[in-house]
Amino acid sequence: MSKPTLTHAPRPATFTVDALNEKGEMLPTAIAGEHPLTLYVDKREVVTLMTLGQAPEALAIGYLRNQRLVRSIDEIAAVQVDWETDSVAVTTRKGVKGLAKRMGKRTVTTGCGQGTVFGDLMEEVGSIRLREDVRLAEETLYSLLDAIRHHETIYKAAGAVHGCALATNQPGGSEILTFVEDVGRHNAVDAIAGQMWLEDIDGGDKIFYTTGRLTSEMVIKCAQMSIPFLVSRSGLTQMGWNIANRIGITMIGRAVNKHYLLFTGWQRFVKTAMPTMLA
Amino acid sequence: MSKPTLTHAPRPATFTVDALNEKGEMLPTAIAGEHPLTLYVDKREVVTLMTLGQAPEALAIGYLRNQRLVRSIDEIAAVQVDWETDSVAVTTRKGVKGLAKRMGKRTVTTGCGQGTVFGDLMEEVGSIRLREDVRLAEETLYSLLDAIRHHETIYKAAGAVHGCALATNQPGGSEILTFVEDVGRHNAVDAIAGQMWLEDIDGGDKIFYTTGRLTSEMVIKCAQMSIPFLVSRSGLTQMGWNIANRIGITMIGRAVNKHYLLFTGWQRFVKTAMPTMLA
Repeated sequence: MSKPTLTHAPRPATFTVDALNEKGEMLPTAIAGEHPLTLYVDKREVVTLMTLGQAPEALAIGYLRNQRLVRSIDEIAAVQVDWETDSVAVTTRKGVKGLAKRMGKRTVTTGCGQGTVFGDLMEEVGSIRLREDVRLAEETLYSLLDAIRHHETIYKAAGAVHGCALATNQPGGSEILTFVEDVGRHNAVDAIAGQMWLEDIDGGDKIFYTTGRLTSEMVIKCAQMSIPFLVSRSGLTQMGWNIANRIGITMIGRAVNKHYLLFTGWQRFVKTAMPTMLA
Repeated sequence: MSKPTLTHAPRPATFTVDALNEKGEMLPTAIAGEHPLTLYVDKREVVTLMTLGQAPEALAIGYLRNQRLVRSIDEIAAVQVDWETDSVAVTTRKGVKGLAKRMGKRTVTTGCGQGTVFGDLMEEVGSIRLREDVRLAEETLYSLLDAIRHHETIYKAAGAVHGCALATNQPGGSEILTFVEDVGRHNAVDAIAGQMWLEDIDGGDKIFYTTGRLTSEMVIKCAQMSIPFLVSRSGLTQMGWNIANRIGITMIGRAVNKHYLLFTGWQRFVKTAMPTMLA
């Protein structure tokens, strides 16, 4: 099956406005872009996303993937972004079965953190199996955090965005495969999911990194992509922890520089031996 | 008209789990609560919110207020939270006109940052008028930031939450009236909106503080509550800036300790004279 036809229409990431600081100085200040993007599937309006617009095509695909409206990239024939009308048109090869009905269901279940289809996601948790034959070494984690720190980001320039990365997990170190930032934390995850489909990347041995908090939805989406390693700079919620524990995902929070907290899925984590442990 | 009958059913804010840190130490670690809360209006299911559960009654009321499903607190007869079924039942005095139809409309417009009814909110922006006879003094801003810094928060204990505060704006200083934290940024804003209705607080001269980013939706919700001063510890987006500029709200970002950036609505801000300015 051929890959979908795509536009390539990112938006400028930052804009400059004047601001007055506490010293009375007028400072040109970079701020992050934010654009409405209305998603149409086979000419039916599905949702309006507010996005930075870094990877609108991958975002549209990943949104449909994570909402389980499309089950394979093969179902998508074309993704066309048009910023003149702030829209993205997805054309499927054979239509989406029961789209109208499923949009109706969304009405009442929308709103995980006022954010997504919660009921549907939870139903899937029980059936997720992550690979148990993969390991993450502490030094690989440190190598990832180092790569993240040196990555050029919109966050450094303008703040107000969340970042997500998909990274490899090799004994020699970790390499960032995709890095997406967005004004919405869920958009960044969805765009990565879309990119994985487009580039045919298997999540089974990868590391997912996010600057955002590990809420229930973040854990579920990561597991849905079959990724066994979830790393965040931030903290987590009780429900995120509960679900991670149940799925057995290896979840690490507060990961900055040489610090981290390993919360769940300890069996996949390999710690570098230290003098105090050898004593 | 009498106030609605309310339960008072907050959930414990934090839970403790074990985590392994980089030193190989097992640390009992506080994490933020996260609970699904399904909102019913006159027995019709409306939405499931993922919440910390600090102020579930105010959250339900504020959600209905900010989604424009209810136009006055007088329309609400009772709000009953039941954590055994993770639900909150709102009973209105006369029903919500066209609820079914409006929930249908939500389907296609849901998703400002995958978060709310975008189309409806934008339509209202044009009609918002904020008070022009109020001022915010720089020293009052500093007094607010000081009060925020000293406030006991779940964030300090467990992270992974956003905080919002409604504060007074007096020449002698600023006092926090309500402080709400939640795992969802929008929930915290909505809970404040609900609290304002419950306590009959007029926003016209108040300050709204948030730890979160100033996206379009945050600016619109603040303006809808008639609050002319919006202060954030974080940055802002282009669309947040555009809307703030159009409404003429006084918006301040990066506000921490004695630092801030004044972005829009400069006419309401009174800077303390400094030697360099007097020279």
